Amino acid sequence: MDGRSASSFHSFQPRLATSRWPARMPLLAMLPLILVAALLSFAAGPVACAHPLDPFSPAELTAIRAAVLASPLVPARPLTFHYVGLDDPDKPALISYANNNNASAIIPRRALVIARAGGESHELLVSVSGFSSSASVISHAVHRGAGFPTLTLEEQFAAVALPPRHPPFVESVRARGVDMDDVLCAVFPVGWFGGDDPSVRQRRVVKLLCFVAGADTANFYARPIEGVTLVVDLDRMAIVGYRDRVEYPVPKAEGTDYRWAGHVGPPAPGAVGQQPEGRGFRIDGHLVRWADWEFHVGFDMRAGTVISLASIHDAALQGGTRRRRPVLYRGFVSEVFVPYMDPAEEWYYRTFLDAGEYGLGLWAFPLQPGADCPHGAAYLDGYYAGQDGMPVQNKNMICVFERRGAGDVAWRHTEAGFPNRLITEVWPDVSLVVRMVVSAGNYDYILDWEFKTSGSIKVTVSLTGLLEVKGTGYTHKDQIPPSEDAHGTLVAENTIAVYHDHFVTYHLDLDVDGTRNSFVKNTITTTKNNGTTTPRKSYWTVRREVAETETDAQIDLNAGAPADLLVVNPGKRTRMGNEAGYRVIPDGATAASVMADDDFPQRRASYCKKQVRVTPYNKSEKWAPGVYADQSTGDDGLGVWSGRDRSVRDEDIVLWYTVGVHHIPYQEDFPVMPTVSGGFELRPANFFDRNPLLLGASPPPATTSRRRGQQAAPVNCSCTGG
Amino acid sequence: MDGRSASSFHSFQPRLATSRWPARMPLLAMLPLILVAALLSFAAGPVACAHPLDPFSPAELTAIRAAVLASPLVPARPLTFHYVGLDDPDKPALISYANNNNASAIIPRRALVIARAGGESHELLVSVSGFSSSASVISHAVHRGAGFPTLTLEEQFAAVALPPRHPPFVESVRARGVDMDDVLCAVFPVGWFGGDDPSVRQRRVVKLLCFVAGADTANFYARPIEGVTLVVDLDRMAIVGYRDRVEYPVPKAEGTDYRWAGHVGPPAPGAVGQQPEGRGFRIDGHLVRWADWEFHVGFDMRAGTVISLASIHDAALQGGTRRRRPVLYRGFVSEVFVPYMDPAEEWYYRTFLDAGEYGLGLWAFPLQPGADCPHGAAYLDGYYAGQDGMPVQNKNMICVFERRGAGDVAWRHTEAGFPNRLITEVWPDVSLVVRMVVSAGNYDYILDWEFKTSGSIKVTVSLTGLLEVKGTGYTHKDQIPPSEDAHGTLVAENTIAVYHDHFVTYHLDLDVDGTRNSFVKNTITTTKNNGTTTPRKSYWTVRREVAETETDAQIDLNAGAPADLLVVNPGKRTRMGNEAGYRVIPDGATAASVMADDDFPQRRASYCKKQVRVTPYNKSEKWAPGVYADQSTGDDGLGVWSGRDRSVRDEDIVLWYTVGVHHIPYQEDFPVMPTVSGGFELRPANFFDRNPLLLGASPPPATTSRRRGQQAAPVNCSCTGG
Repeated sequence: MDGRSASSFHSFQPRLATSRWPARMPLLAMLPLILVAALLSFAAGPVACAHPLDPFSPAELTAIRAAVLASPLVPARPLTFHYVGLDDPDKPALISYANNNNASAIIPRRALVIARAGGESHELLVSVSGFSSSASVISHAVHRGAGFPTLTLEEQFAAVALPPRHPPFVESVRARGVDMDDVLCAVFPVGWFGGDDPSVRQRRVVKLLCFVAGADTANFYARPIEGVTLVVDLDRMAIVGYRDRVEYPVPKAEGTDYRWAGHVGPPAPGAVGQQPEGRGFRIDGHLVRWADWEFHVGFDMRAGTVISLASIHDAALQGGTRRRRPVLYRGFVSEVFVPYMDPAEEWYYRTFLDAGEYGLGLWAFPLQPGADCPHGAAYLDGYYAGQDGMPVQNKNMICVFERRGAGDVAWRHTEAGFPNRLITEVWPDVSLVVRMVVSAGNYDYILDWEFKTSGSIKVTVSLTGLLEVKGTGYTHKDQIPPSEDAHGTLVAENTIAVYHDHFVTYHLDLDVDGTRNSFVKNTITTTKNNGTTTPRKSYWTVRREVAETETDAQIDLNAGAPADLLVVNPGKRTRMGNEAGYRVIPDGATAASVMADDDFPQRRASYCKKQVRVTPYNKSEKWAPGVYADQSTGDDGLGVWSGRDRSVRDEDIVLWYTVGVHHIPYQEDFPVMPTVSGGFELRPANFFDRNPLLLGASPPPATTSRRRGQQAAPVNCSCTGG
Repeated sequence: MDGRSASSFHSFQPRLATSRWPARMPLLAMLPLILVAALLSFAAGPVACAHPLDPFSPAELTAIRAAVLASPLVPARPLTFHYVGLDDPDKPALISYANNNNASAIIPRRALVIARAGGESHELLVSVSGFSSSASVISHAVHRGAGFPTLTLEEQFAAVALPPRHPPFVESVRARGVDMDDVLCAVFPVGWFGGDDPSVRQRRVVKLLCFVAGADTANFYARPIEGVTLVVDLDRMAIVGYRDRVEYPVPKAEGTDYRWAGHVGPPAPGAVGQQPEGRGFRIDGHLVRWADWEFHVGFDMRAGTVISLASIHDAALQGGTRRRRPVLYRGFVSEVFVPYMDPAEEWYYRTFLDAGEYGLGLWAFPLQPGADCPHGAAYLDGYYAGQDGMPVQNKNMICVFERRGAGDVAWRHTEAGFPNRLITEVWPDVSLVVRMVVSAGNYDYILDWEFKTSGSIKVTVSLTGLLEVKGTGYTHKDQIPPSEDAHGTLVAENTIAVYHDHFVTYHLDLDVDGTRNSFVKNTITTTKNNGTTTPRKSYWTVRREVAETETDAQIDLNAGAPADLLVVNPGKRTRMGNEAGYRVIPDGATAASVMADDDFPQRRASYCKKQVRVTPYNKSEKWAPGVYADQSTGDDGLGVWSGRDRSVRDEDIVLWYTVGVHHIPYQEDFPVMPTVSGGFELRPANFFDRNPLLLGASPPPATTSRRRGQQAAPVNCSCTGG
């Protein structure tokens, strides 16, 4: 975002005005606060110098809205905006732009808009002119297939305001002895479960579940009104179904709060993390430069953080010339699938697609300086389109910080073999982290992209937040009959934390030293020693397999012989003749889905059976469960695409990696869960001629900064300063 | 170690005087420096207040030596000391001692000594009196089975001094155009490969391989004199075998060095890591107290760091009384198995047992303050017995530091569901790390025990250092015929980095809330939804299996259905009725050995086929490949013990966990390897009634320190101050 236009954008304070709740959203009484985005002054000035991948500015969002509303192609009203995002620029043109030092060619800037009007989902392509902040619709289509677009925040607010005016619900609440003023409800997608009546599938409905809030606890998820379900038709915004099936005691509030008040308080952040001499990184607009890395940090209301055009300036050995070598054309979270494992009436459909149904970017809240991110971090704001199309500001949504002084070692060696001298060389590790936190209802996902001087990109998902719990009559484990499956752990009186999974799927369009890449599986293969006279009977060697098609590249990380997985560039080789490559190394959290293949949630997220997939680059294949995730049927997602078995050898390929966790809750996870982390590392593997740390390919940032006399640039600086 | 006695102990400066080299030890010309330990003044005062698990003081080591040499049980001379370590105290007595606040009962202090004399391996049990620093031999046995004790540093120094005086070797060096002054040799154990002649097995031999050093590089491993092997009989200290089999060019020195000189230099440590108000931990002698943790840090010349009696002061909910709850009775690295995967004459036997053959504690070098460990770290020295039995000081061998400010989050939540308020609570993570670095020849192992306020103990192995490479005629990959298996990666001209594994096996005597524990496997099990009327077709639930015997508890982490693995105390339950437990969670690096079962190295380390094993506690079962690892045959190790299928249910059990890495080298690993990490977490699982971070069971150290007005005590303070 351009700092100058941002300064003239009327943002909302406090941030609460843009509060929203994805899965389990009790927003009763928030209706008066529904976000009203201020119009950007058109005098905000040109945004001509924006990077082609920059998220839309408030001025651009406003222009896009105006163009859509002015278009004769979609006359029906009301028209609601469900997604406004960057339509991917032509890849060769963008690469050429990047190679020309972000100058020269003009890259057309287009928005993809998904809107609802007249009971239909409309896709509009809007051309945006950065020079004049004007826009025009250039194409239109109506979505005819299954599924609906991402829920807006506003319609969720409207839906949760309905129950207190629904007499049967009022009666249910009264019967449980609960004060209606203490009741908050949340929106739950219904998923898709087949069904004979095709008309049922065409209604855009959600379920509402309700909780007891009140003054006693900030953790209302811990106090479900179990057994009561409401169904809301979102297009009619009316309650169309109601059931009070069974009554359990509402769990008590005591012991469910997680706030500091009255507790010992968190650790002091301390002086650590402060940079003694300013930041070692530079941010110009959305371009980040650090050590030998350069990349673009974008934002999407569905994906959250988008990393693009990550490349390394390599101090090549031959001739000492530094050249920029691409690594990751684009990387983002494509989907977060969270199925719960209780088949009961109120639970069977809880199979969330947090990105597609709710939007990860919509549910990223302001980061807490000094706590979510250490001192010295820089922060980026984000802007997205509200339901009415107007820009909404998301303050401090992404942070960028150097991780140093934690005691990590990049490499070391002690050499005692020389007479009269002991050599010890230790290189403390410093890395650069790009972080967003998505509070998708009860759960919090800390999503990190960590760039290392070794050339690695480490991707980490840290799970924390609150458990989704079920009311029960039991107050002690011994009361549960051995024959009964509780589908979870009794974590407190009347409170079962239900079993569930988390599958975070990354779209990784790797361009390892160029666009044409192949996927290689180097399998550890036991071999008999028949070739020598030595008494050794066996050893392992490497069986190299290059994936020809998508089927070859579907990998179950927990089955088969161990293997190194690489993306290589068959056209680029090291001095020694090895193909330039990057490995993908699992770092814990390798669970895959274990639901039956024919089960409905599994069909919608069938890609979760293999943690690694490779597809040829296709502009339309971004969202793992398909574009229309809400009530999707699985007919147009990654599982289907990668089943086409297209060629992936020496092509422009995309690696899909799913980080997975089976979560059996334990009492320590209640009322708030200590962080659990997992992820993967993209690590250079014969990409460099040697250890890049050692030989100046990646001079350590502190040193670099000192040597070059760089001062950290302010974030969101004017692009003319870049 | 008691600070007062240390001050009167004449330690060696520089530390180089105690240099030693495990696998690949070119210590030519170090003979004149062979360690001569100074006699401790017997006026050093009593050590009566030592903890029963403290490593032996210099005074005690001196007394043990005197007792052994004075004993009529082993009259043969020369007598060499190969191991002097603490004979484990009686476990119930020690637990009682710990429960009585480290006072009251007198725990007998005994040393296990393994010495060589008269061509035999002797085991002596020596009673040590802390009051008078006197000792006496109380039992003696001669080892009759296979295998030999750990190699001493001194005999390795002596062996590597032999080749320059061996005429055939002089000729081989001359023929290669190398100056003998630039040659360094290293000691390689021969392993065990069967053989018909039983007398061969009874000779204590090693192989020597030699390298070109000189002034051009500190990385002599990169320049092997490939094809030349010498065999040395250690008891005779004479060359008994020689072969110059094949000649390859010695790889060039250029590009092999890893020192900073001339390079960009490491990152500035910065101000980070400094504690604004002193350390949050206390060290009294070898007892460490931090947050709610208390544990003992010991040292063993074979295992390195030994963590004992780790327990948590739990702010129990009932009544608010804090009680000390045991977690880990003892944990240490039992073995590091590193087999290489080249069957050639000079490589087939390279199947190192770094702990048993070399001694991890012997090869731990001084840590570099501010680099190996951050500012604010405390350091512990170690003492071990030299070959002559005299104490040798190991300065700054273990560091203890708080890890904070790295941007890690212990837990967080943002709650947007309440009207008119946005709640964000973030708890930055702080943990305590105990670190040792073992430079076992070319490789460096950074071995961390990390204690967390969540109740977790995270164990991490970080691999770095130099590759073990093989000389070759090839200078480019295209020269290698497709039919030829190079057994490694061509990382530089004439240099192949050979495939290999690392298996780091931990002995974890967990006592979860008491001694009697069971091992539980909670398997994720797909279930058909037949019990409800909902359209969900499947879900997973937990199939709980309690291991009855050792066979039940052998786990291949990479096979079978996913499962949570726990050690539970069937006699202790939470308020809700769940058994108190700790989970073991793999954190990457889950490789298992893939060699043929009948291969000799595999028989010696057969335990490496399963990453998790459980045995009933048995004092004699400490070392995974058996006590006598050098030339062991696998007849008395963990594989055999756990095959006895003893009962492990509701017993005092030991968990064995092997961290494993298959290492296919890449060019980035040369000449020094960027760190690769893996390990596991021991995480409370229904051990606490709720998240211990939140409710004061583990008040954060900074706060605690402030509240209690504690000042960090100096390390190695007088025990009367504890």
